[in-house]
Order: sequence, then structure tokens, then C-alpha cells
Amino acid sequence: MAQLPNRDTHFADWYQEVIYQAELVDQAPVRGCFVIRPYGYAIWEMIQAELDRRIKETGHENAAFPLLIPESFLKKEAEHVEGFAPELAVVTHAGGKLLEEPLVVRPTSETIIHYMFARWIKSWRDLPLKINQWGNVVRWEMRPRAFLRTTEFFWQEGHTAHETLEEADAEVIMMLEQYRIMYEDYLAVPVVPGPKSAGEKFPGADRTMTLEALMPDGRALQCCTSHLISRDFARAFEMKFQTRDGNVEYPYLTSWGFTTRSIGALIMTHGDAKGLILPPRIAPIQVIIVPIVKEGADNEAIIVAARDLALELANRGMRVMLDEDTNKTPGAKFYHWEMKGVPVRIEIGPRDVAQQQAVLVDRLTSTKQMMPLSEIPASMIAVLKKLQVDMLEKAREHTKKIWYRQEKLAEFAKQLEEKSGFYQTGWCGKPACEQKLKEHKVSIRCLLGEKTFSTCFNCDAKSETDVLVAKSY
Amino acid sequence: MAQLPNRDTHFADWYQEVIYQAELVDQAPVRGCFVIRPYGYAIWEMIQAELDRRIKETGHENAAFPLLIPESFLKKEAEHVEGFAPELAVVTHAGGKLLEEPLVVRPTSETIIHYMFARWIKSWRDLPLKINQWGNVVRWEMRPRAFLRTTEFFWQEGHTAHETLEEADAEVIMMLEQYRIMYEDYLAVPVVPGPKSAGEKFPGADRTMTLEALMPDGRALQCCTSHLISRDFARAFEMKFQTRDGNVEYPYLTSWGFTTRSIGALIMTHGDAKGLILPPRIAPIQVIIVPIVKEGADNEAIIVAARDLALELANRGMRVMLDEDTNKTPGAKFYHWEMKGVPVRIEIGPRDVAQQQAVLVDRLTSTKQMMPLSEIPASMIAVLKKLQVDMLEKAREHTKKIWYRQEKLAEFAKQLEEKSGFYQTGWCGKPACEQKLKEHKVSIRCLLGEKTFSTCFNCDAKSETDVLVAKSY
Repeated sequence: MAQLPNRDTHFADWYQEVIYQAELVDQAPVRGCFVIRPYGYAIWEMIQAELDRRIKETGHENAAFPLLIPESFLKKEAEHVEGFAPELAVVTHAGGKLLEEPLVVRPTSETIIHYMFARWIKSWRDLPLKINQWGNVVRWEMRPRAFLRTTEFFWQEGHTAHETLEEADAEVIMMLEQYRIMYEDYLAVPVVPGPKSAGEKFPGADRTMTLEALMPDGRALQCCTSHLISRDFARAFEMKFQTRDGNVEYPYLTSWGFTTRSIGALIMTHGDAKGLILPPRIAPIQVIIVPIVKEGADNEAIIVAARDLALELANRGMRVMLDEDTNKTPGAKFYHWEMKGVPVRIEIGPRDVAQQQAVLVDRLTSTKQMMPLSEIPASMIAVLKKLQVDMLEKAREHTKKIWYRQEKLAEFAKQLEEKSGFYQTGWCGKPACEQKLKEHKVSIRCLLGEKTFSTCFNCDAKSETDVLVAKSY
Repeated sequence: MAQLPNRDTHFADWYQEVIYQAELVDQAPVRGCFVIRPYGYAIWEMIQAELDRRIKETGHENAAFPLLIPESFLKKEAEHVEGFAPELAVVTHAGGKLLEEPLVVRPTSETIIHYMFARWIKSWRDLPLKINQWGNVVRWEMRPRAFLRTTEFFWQEGHTAHETLEEADAEVIMMLEQYRIMYEDYLAVPVVPGPKSAGEKFPGADRTMTLEALMPDGRALQCCTSHLISRDFARAFEMKFQTRDGNVEYPYLTSWGFTTRSIGALIMTHGDAKGLILPPRIAPIQVIIVPIVKEGADNEAIIVAARDLALELANRGMRVMLDEDTNKTPGAKFYHWEMKGVPVRIEIGPRDVAQQQAVLVDRLTSTKQMMPLSEIPASMIAVLKKLQVDMLEKAREHTKKIWYRQEKLAEFAKQLEEKSGFYQTGWCGKPACEQKLKEHKVSIRCLLGEKTFSTCFNCDAKSETDVLVAKSY
């Protein structure tokens, strides 16, 4: 394996290389697509398990809707089709024949799910209707990048219908909060929640809420979004319900999605010169045990101690692996598991066994710590918890460091080009001023809801709210 | 809700109706596709959880490969493309342009997975390679039927590569056995394992093993298959490895899949005039508690007792639901949960609470049983276990009843048309004789490996093995 490119000076190259060397993905022979290899997929499964639990706990049910959607469905909502048309993959032939109506491979499922909602919702008693789907979607991607932008990607998409606007709004916020918990408490990636500007919202949404994270290279990553969907969809699909007072109304709709992009976020946020660093809560392997054996020596006591320890940790619910490969040196194993970002390594050598101890090395700081074998099982949960907290804290510190507060674009335009980061500034709310940012290849990532600037970054009008401006992925 | 069609006289209509009334599926506005509604999807999730555990336990890792496959890949193996060409959905346009090479929506993933295997396998040290994928596939379906034959369906597909034929053969058999356990011990559907005849095997397989189940209408359902895949695939994708003795060879390949068809199998096998009957091990709700309350009466004691009981059962790991809906009569609730096939119902009325007891009704036999409230939590696990066993036993009895042994096709041809079922008979192994069965709309479902007949069902040649002949789904 070649050494990784320098992460500080060649961040994009580092990312590109670390995902292959850590065996998270491989290139696929289909434009814009990647194969997610077992180690990468195991991370996704860890994320899915926790998020699925939360989606169910908050009253949603999983279901499955068709992958292929009649082309006419997408055209029913003008803004929606305009947003997605350039990204569609279209099935024109099937069963050996030209189809009467082409089918698009779903880029998202609002239209077909709303069509079904219209069949299921008759009365206020059928509301709220709260459905989630785990699946794959396809959006033709011209600049593919594993996990971050791929033609096919994996996600969950939640779709709900409600009696009142208040209830729909609360749903949008609740799911954004679930996503925030996933990002901060599980992936250890700090995020900024906030509404998108009208210019940046989802095609077909009245309002889009987003979580934005600042990557180490100073570019913002849109982590996930939660939308109040336009009632135009309900109108387009004639989704109506009888209200409590006997009238007929269109329900209020939401949708929200969390994708495999989250894996990209955690790779970028935490990795270092040696490879990945995985937060313990979603690491497929939390503890790797490497016995330090020598050819020809009597290694039995070491192997026995290592196996006992592995069993003890597993019994306490930790995800532990013992690397007994006899074809590799301990050094090669260290290198391998560091690349894969396993949070804690335990080394047990001949002297350790004699003294009934082992060496713990954490992946975040590389600190070595001697610990009696008997104490390791009980202590390890605390060690992993601390690592989880420290990783979030470290990422927060970094975000703070490149979070700038600037009054006028004219003043920070030059800085923008040299130092990427979050630029907090004031905005009058007008699209014309937002448009100005395009010249500098930045955009409003989200509205902040605070007001620390009196005027807009571009014009002399009063600022309505602070906004976060950044280059984005 | 309309009454269900008579299951004995109108089985197909009964099936068609029960899946809608039990809210397992709904029709989708895409030819051959269905929406799997939450209750149906919950059954699939129960199945997935157990099968996924078994797939991992037997040494496989999950991964994800692209949905879209270059058309040329399918053409690399002649038999494979011939088998699948008529069923393909083809993407010809994407990103607003005509594609240089069309992409097919995967009907199965041998080709793209083998392409990747060829990149990953260099030496015998890389073997065995054991990968599984959960996902959706598309095969254009002219005669769609929910769960049984649908254009899009959900499954897992396992793909492995091995050093030796023996090892690959063992893998094929091991996974078939895992599937048998799923069908018999979880879905309570008895199956017959055996090899397919050359005429019925998977396009591209050297050998196909199948599980066949006999449905109540006497037609056979191919439950799932496990294949020894032709090394032509390895040749087509130049998948080679260095052997232990330094030579270069093509690995031996397997693939095996388990689909949402399994849900169709269990609906047909167990349902009755009142609706579904779900085996406890995969029932999303195992116990439904219905408080028998009257408007105007003091129902508090009943509700409290019902809630306590629900909590007790949940604490013991059972999937229990309390139906507190105040808009429905107990009778309407009985009807509803019977339709949904919940294995056990508990009724608690005013007299029951006074006597600290409740009524248990099992869905299989409708037997009513009085039980002290304090005994229910401890007894319920045994009640559910017994139901699980009884359901399999009942289905086995039925299979036995319509399993005929017949010597010559000329003799049983007439019976074939009147009484569907498994027809065990002898076969010489020649395709010409197998072909004869087509005239009677039946086929060899699998080879049985016993020899109770001396000659072929069709000719005078010696029988090589007994076979199972039946009409099939």
C-alpha cells in the first residue's frame, strides 16, 4: 500500500485514497457508481440500525414503494420536475418492447408515495400518516465522489401527511433533531441546523431545514435535510381528507432523508495521516486485539490470554476482534487496523502475559496505556465513551477555528478565496444579494436565526438574519 | 370489508383478496409492481433479521453493488443472457442524454459481482470470498401476482468464490439448509429440498438446488434456490487466482437467493376463511390484547389490567399490542386482528378482571382457554411455541395428503388434471421424457434422490431417480 497523500495539503487526494485503502469502497464499472465493500457497508448497517430504531420510536412505519416511477408523475409538480429532470435515468424498454410511457428510476419518491397516500387518506382519522422507506435512488451525477456524490446512493426517505401545518412543522423539526443526534452523538460530526434560503431549498418544498457540517478543508457539507413539502403535491395527486368539522382539505406534507453521505462526513471529519478514525458507537470493530508473538517462541500463553480477553469484551457487548493471522507481523497489523480506524488496539506480548497486563492504544491520540488484564473488560466501556466524546469535541474545536464573522462581502471576498470556512454574516433576504455569492463560488448554507449584523453583507438594507456562507461539497 | 372468497373453492381469489384486506400490499401504478404496506413490510423485516443473522454467522459479509449493469456484462455468458433477456428493464437515457451503452436494471447480480470478484481475487489466500447483498431486482413480469411474481422484488443474493469444487458444493448445500430452516422453523412451511433437472436450472448454473413447497391448491411453489454457478462466468470476467502450488486457476462459484416470495408462501400455506394466520416466530404482533369494555361502564380496572399484562409480556420479549381504540366494538377488533393473523388474542372483560383471569384464543384452532392473569406471562412463551410447531405439523399433514406416488404418466395423466399435488414418479433423466410433462402443464420440480420406481414415467428405460412432478406457481 502506498502512503496516504498529505491530508493538510491534499485533502481531496487523501479522501480519495483513504476510502480505497481502508476497503470502504471500490470503483464500479458504471458511471458515477461505487461498490460499497463489506467494511463500508458494516458502517452503514450500524448507522441504519440506530436510525431505524429512532424512526420507529417516533411513530413511523417502514414500507416499500416501486423503484420505477411513471415519467408523468414527476411532471405533476412543476418545480419538482424542473429540479430533477437533468438527473433522471430513464427506462424506455422493458420485456423486449418499447414502453408506452417511460419509467424513471426514482430520484426520490414523493410522487409515487403521494399517489398512494391519496388512496389511503380519506378522513382525519387516517392522519397523521407516517411512512419511511429504506432504499436506493438514482440521480445522474456528473462529478461523482464516493459517498458524497454518487449516481446511485442509499438512504431512508420519510414521508408524512398531517391535519395541520403546526403538526407538519413539528414533524420536520423532530426528524431534523433525530438526524442531529445521529450526526453529533453517533458520528461525532458537529452540525449547524437551520432553514435553507428559498434559492437553496428542495424542488417542491415550501421550507427546507438542513444540517450543515464544516469539513477540515473548510468546505460545508449538507448532511441531510427535512422538508415541509408543498401542498401542490397533495393537489396534484388529489390527496384530500374529510376534516373533523366535515370539510374537505388537503393534508400538510413532510419528507426527510438521511443518506450514505453520512459516511463521507465521518471519514473527512475524523481521519488522519494513518487512515480512518471511527467513532466507537458506529465502529464495526471497536477493539482490535493484536497478540505480539514471535516465530519459534512458545506463544500459547499469549494466545490464551488474548482469546479470554476477546471473549470477556464480547460478553460485555463490545464489538471486538482478535487478529490471529500468522502470516503478518504485529507491525503490519497495527498499520492495517489503524488504516481501518478501529478506536482501540490492545497489544499483548510475552512480558505482558507474565505480568498479567496489556497495552491499550487509542486511535485518536495514539496514547499508550498499561492496564492489568483483569481491569480491561470493566474499563473499556469508559475508554470508548471518552473517545466518542473527545472526537466530537475535537471536531467542534476545529469548526470554531474556521468559523469567521464578517460584515461585508466586499471586505471578506478575498479572504473567502484563500481561507475556506463558515462565514457568518448578515443578509437582507433578497435573492439578488444571495446571487452575488455565486461569483465567489460560495452560497448560503443556512439561515442562523440570530441577528448580530445590522445590514446585509451585500447591500445597505437591514439584515433579516445572520446566515452561514461557505463553499460546499 | 367484504367477506373473503371461499378458500377451498376459489383459492386464487381468496389469496388476491386476503393480501389487500390484511393490508399487506396495495396495487402500484406501475405494471407488475406492488406497494408493500407497513404490516407486510414488518413481516419481511422479521424474516430479514433472522436470515441476515444466519448469513453472517455462516461467514458471509454484506456489501452493495450497483443497481444498473452495463448491457454488455449480461451478454458475457450466453446461457445467462438468453435466460434473462426477455425480462430486462433497460435504461437508455440518463442525465438528459442517450447513453452510449444501455444499462439494465439488475435482474440478478452475478455479472457485476463477478466483475468485482475478478479485481479482488488474486491468490488462494483471497478465497473463499463470501459476499451477500440485500436489495431489489427487476424482472419484467407479464402475469404479476403480489409476492409470488412481481416486476420488482426484494431479496438477498449471496455470491461466493472457492478454491475447490468440494468447497463450493458444500456452500450450495449449507445455504439451502439455512433456507430450509427459515421456511420450516420460522415460516412453518414444509419444503422438499432437491436438485433441479437440467431443463429447470438457473440460466448460467451448472447445478441448481431448490426448495419446493406444496400449496393448499396442490400447486408447487419454488421457494428459493442455491446454485453452483458455471465457471464460464469466471472465464468471462477473467477471474483467476494463484493456487497453493503456484498454478493459475478459475475459482468455483456459487449464488443463492431468498425473496419476498416467502411471504406469499406463508400466506397461502396458513391462511383460512378469516384471513391470515402468522407463525409466532415471524409475526410482527404475536399477542393482541382486547379489553372488553362497555360505554358508560367503569372500565378502569379492565384497562389497568390489560396494560399491566401488555407490559409484562413485552418485558419477557414478546411482541404484544393492546388495542385501546374506543371507536371500535370488541367484535370489530376480533375480526380485524383475525384478518391480520395475530397468533394469540387475549380478551379481558369485567367478569375476568373481577376473577383475575383472562380468555386466550389462539388463531389456529380458535380454542378458548381461561387462564389466571398471573399465569399468562410465564405460560405465553409455551403457547406460542406450541402454535409454531402445530402450524408446521398441520401443513405437513396437508402435503402428505396430496402427495401421490404413480408409476406411469399414461396412468396418472387424467388424475393430474383433476387433482393437483406432488406426483412422485421415476425418470430416466432424458429431456425428451421431461418435455412430455409440458403437455399436461406440469414439470419436474426437483429430483428426489430416492429410487422407488424401476422405470421412467414416460419410457421403458431404467429410472435414474424419483422426481417430484407438479403444476407450479
